[in-house]
Amino acid sequence: MVNSRSNQPYFSDIDPPTRLLMGPGPANVHPRVLRAMSADVLGQFDPEMTQYMNETMALYREVFRTKNKWTFLVNGSARAGIEAALTSLLEPGARVLILQAGRFGLLLSEICERIDAEIHLIDLPWGEVATLAQIEEAIKAVKPAVFACIHGDTSTTTAQPLEGVGALCKKYGVISYVDATATLGGMAVETDGWEIDVVSSGLQKCMGGPPGSAPITISDRAAEFIFSRRKVELGLKTKDSAAGARPFIRSNYFDLAMIMQYWSDRRLNHHTEATSMLYASRECARVALKEGLEARFARHRECKAEMVRGVEALGLKLYGHSATRMTNVTGIYVPAHLDDETVRTRMRDEHGIEIGTAFGPLAGKIWRIGAMGHNAHLSNVRRVLAALETCLK
Amino acid sequence: MVNSRSNQPYFSDIDPPTRLLMGPGPANVHPRVLRAMSADVLGQFDPEMTQYMNETMALYREVFRTKNKWTFLVNGSARAGIEAALTSLLEPGARVLILQAGRFGLLLSEICERIDAEIHLIDLPWGEVATLAQIEEAIKAVKPAVFACIHGDTSTTTAQPLEGVGALCKKYGVISYVDATATLGGMAVETDGWEIDVVSSGLQKCMGGPPGSAPITISDRAAEFIFSRRKVELGLKTKDSAAGARPFIRSNYFDLAMIMQYWSDRRLNHHTEATSMLYASRECARVALKEGLEARFARHRECKAEMVRGVEALGLKLYGHSATRMTNVTGIYVPAHLDDETVRTRMRDEHGIEIGTAFGPLAGKIWRIGAMGHNAHLSNVRRVLAALETCLK
Repeated sequence: MVNSRSNQPYFSDIDPPTRLLMGPGPANVHPRVLRAMSADVLGQFDPEMTQYMNETMALYREVFRTKNKWTFLVNGSARAGIEAALTSLLEPGARVLILQAGRFGLLLSEICERIDAEIHLIDLPWGEVATLAQIEEAIKAVKPAVFACIHGDTSTTTAQPLEGVGALCKKYGVISYVDATATLGGMAVETDGWEIDVVSSGLQKCMGGPPGSAPITISDRAAEFIFSRRKVELGLKTKDSAAGARPFIRSNYFDLAMIMQYWSDRRLNHHTEATSMLYASRECARVALKEGLEARFARHRECKAEMVRGVEALGLKLYGHSATRMTNVTGIYVPAHLDDETVRTRMRDEHGIEIGTAFGPLAGKIWRIGAMGHNAHLSNVRRVLAALETCLK
Repeated sequence: MVNSRSNQPYFSDIDPPTRLLMGPGPANVHPRVLRAMSADVLGQFDPEMTQYMNETMALYREVFRTKNKWTFLVNGSARAGIEAALTSLLEPGARVLILQAGRFGLLLSEICERIDAEIHLIDLPWGEVATLAQIEEAIKAVKPAVFACIHGDTSTTTAQPLEGVGALCKKYGVISYVDATATLGGMAVETDGWEIDVVSSGLQKCMGGPPGSAPITISDRAAEFIFSRRKVELGLKTKDSAAGARPFIRSNYFDLAMIMQYWSDRRLNHHTEATSMLYASRECARVALKEGLEARFARHRECKAEMVRGVEALGLKLYGHSATRMTNVTGIYVPAHLDDETVRTRMRDEHGIEIGTAFGPLAGKIWRIGAMGHNAHLSNVRRVLAALETCLK
């Protein structure tokens, strides 16, 4: 109940406890990003606002390591970026090949079920990765319109190697989609190097930002397909606007053709851009590029090495395969004599540190400890290890 | 090009020009809301985070004037709230009756076309409103599953009277949906008083917040229907979760059944809540309730009266009908000898004030001048009028 009849204000000011977020994300936000969000908003067609939008596009081209013109933000959480990509790329009945080896691979299937796509799977046990040969074999058998996979699946702390995957898809005329929510800014995401058509992400993992904005990049050939599904919004028809030749996209909010036109020089009205989250996204990229991506990846790798050393020194066992472990989140088996939740609660209440539980077949079996973005510092890793040692006793 | 080879940082700090936003929204954000967003994030299942979520639900019950349990946020712009409501309420082929009398009425049709609903219209000229008798006649003729309309359509500066509309819908077994993006916090939105089932909104108009979060409220009977379309997310199946009996919702991100479960005590994982926007939404409501909704509505009415007096003193003509004009945005005919855009550009560049242009049949014909949320102060209205007088010369 709101205390509307008392003299007290409605609840208290926002004043969250100081907490070190070392789970699989969100991580603590870089102070520069928090400050950027405290600037007032602008009108959405103000020249300064559209300049911020254009600068954000340029910055994320560097972050995604791409020359793609269409590099911008979807206004929503990372999941909004995934749904925007898949619903724009897949017509109902279109064939999609999904690499599924963890919870977020399942999410791709889940979203494609909603779209009524014809779903085919490379269905691996959680935590495994596919070889190029496996992917090629599946593509040849299925002949999909789209191949979709997760780069780093935090549910299994495993990264799918993507070298050669985009080129392979191109060879068979397949559009490739990769979700890089958990890796962008922390591990190399080589959009152009891997020739991936569409990559989407979020801010709340290695980008050091808050959840609620989904950077995305789209190749020209994927954009051409998406524009062919364009629908002209009622009430916005002009002489030079025309619908595309293919069945229109089944969402207005996630219609990437419309969102691209909004981010284009034509600035066709769509949603009202989430200004504060745009400021946050832009600042995340500036912070990351100022540090340098390679330096940033190295910082995450160093934290991983320290985490591995420390965990093994505590006599704990690492989950997953050393060759394919993500560098920014570590899976650790819960010792048989301990309760997952009890330890996590003690870590939070006694040490002010959040570590993660697990989903599905790994629920209660592993903890997931992240060191992401602004939090990927050796001092934080050491603090987690020291606290964990205490809580294991 | 990003200046990656120079010694300069990547573009400059976020430092928007000071601008008085007196268009149809976004308006300037209340400083308390900007400050709330500068607090660091929490883990999404942290007890303090879930408490903030519960408090946000309680606060928006008061803002929406409802007892609805299901009162929460959709993570996206106001348009995301509309799409979440319609896509959750309308199965493909379901019949929807839309009251269409402006651009945002068209948006409802636009979204319903994507959903493949069977669309029926009460199609009025822009700026007109429907009577209860007209709505009843259409409901009897169409027998829709859902009736949908816009409360205040900023494109026409007109508010549709809603007294009795929800009760009328109930009488015929119709679910009612109202978009209150442009009115919530500025004009009375009587969710329970009008017996409307689902109302959605945004922050960037009269709530005095940034765009990017969509408060929504859902009656028990609408929630029951939505839960009957529930789909259990792959990878999250538990013994006590079961799919609904009706065809599932065709979007994962906008599946209000899943979003309600995320906001319920069960906290079933869905998206990662946009923490900074949650903080902003919560603070917008606290600011509004501390002032008091009636005081707030009165403030908007006083600004409207001052605007009308001033505009008429300048010899300008008001658009629309006096009985149905919104109190927070005013349509003013562009004098025949003046160019819409020239005046707006001068207002911005010489006076630091944004006023709005118009869409569709009103493009180039009217300006739209808002006084919304934090900006609804007589001093701001007077500043706009003084600047406008200069620019009209």
